[in-house]
Amino acid sequence: MSEVIKALNWRYAVKKYNSEKKVSKEDLDTILAAVRLSPSAYGLQPLKILVIENQELRTELRSFSYNQPQVTDASHLLVLCTFNEINEEIIEGMIEFTAEARGKEVTELSRYHEFLKGAILPMDTEEMKKWNDHQVYIALGHLLQTCAHLRIDSTPMEGFQSLEFDRILGLTERNLHSVVVCPIGYRSDEDANQYINKARRSLEDLVEFIS
Amino acid sequence: MSEVIKALNWRYAVKKYNSEKKVSKEDLDTILAAVRLSPSAYGLQPLKILVIENQELRTELRSFSYNQPQVTDASHLLVLCTFNEINEEIIEGMIEFTAEARGKEVTELSRYHEFLKGAILPMDTEEMKKWNDHQVYIALGHLLQTCAHLRIDSTPMEGFQSLEFDRILGLTERNLHSVVVCPIGYRSDEDANQYINKARRSLEDLVEFIS
Repeated sequence: MSEVIKALNWRYAVKKYNSEKKVSKEDLDTILAAVRLSPSAYGLQPLKILVIENQELRTELRSFSYNQPQVTDASHLLVLCTFNEINEEIIEGMIEFTAEARGKEVTELSRYHEFLKGAILPMDTEEMKKWNDHQVYIALGHLLQTCAHLRIDSTPMEGFQSLEFDRILGLTERNLHSVVVCPIGYRSDEDANQYINKARRSLEDLVEFIS
Repeated sequence: MSEVIKALNWRYAVKKYNSEKKVSKEDLDTILAAVRLSPSAYGLQPLKILVIENQELRTELRSFSYNQPQVTDASHLLVLCTFNEINEEIIEGMIEFTAEARGKEVTELSRYHEFLKGAILPMDTEEMKKWNDHQVYIALGHLLQTCAHLRIDSTPMEGFQSLEFDRILGLTERNLHSVVVCPIGYRSDEDANQYINKARRSLEDLVEFIS
């Protein structure tokens, strides 16, 4: 069986973490590097990843996460955020890091810069927010698979009050909002969920071939 | 360097495919198995993956994809779809495959069944669509990373006319819509994009630690 399939079969959404066991700096670096390499529309990477270790803050956030214990007990709490809107400054920043990576002057990318402004700035706010959120979910897919590869547990969570998270983390005034929360760490032996079979739609139901 | 990071550094959004080189059945099976193992909200897996080899159909779809050649030239064209709305039948199907995986009777899951109906059925259509789309993007993250691991190329594409895709593929009447398109296959030596440096936001810009 492919290593990928082994890893994905190993993972499940952990309910109870071993709060003593911490993810190493090396593994955390790999996970964040994978998120950084995640593709995004136009390469804009509308992402901000908060890595929260502070227990006081995590206790406060847990009260806006239906009191789910993973928020405080996992090794690290990751909050995946995106921009509320992509403005000129963000597009300019993207042109700058692209020029730098490619060994070019910013002016050499001016046509692409104009194209991006024309394509993105007229989008309505709701549309833009939706679009940005999608890019976060691609990154989440990479995050989860990378964790599984490293045999680090993860619990993607949509069940949290994002507006309260945004307020507590001071995101709104920074043109950011929280999209999805993901505690990572190591499962507790006591988490019964690891012992039950994974339930998935059959491949026949999931996939259709058009030859 | 971690194998994951090597793989993700290797990948890029291919513009020109080698149309002669096909993805093997074994590799395709692995990719689809990874998508199948992708987590989703409540484990509902609101996914349908179309794997399109038919060239006539791909030519038609290309004309609604800004004429991007990857749509016809890659080994396989994957169209990732989701339900327009999650109805009672879908929830029932999920309870059935879950009961089967866990060796239980459907009736033993009746409390969870009721919980799901109560949580999901009252959602408004727009909210449900948005939520389902998110699950597709998690699966897309797994698809892309799995392809990279197997050194198979991929081009995630949001630039297509989804309503036209839905019409041509007969999705609407099946309670489905297309979310994202992803040709997979092998890069052509002539694709200049493989030779330019990957541009990414710096880690310092992307990640914030709250200790």
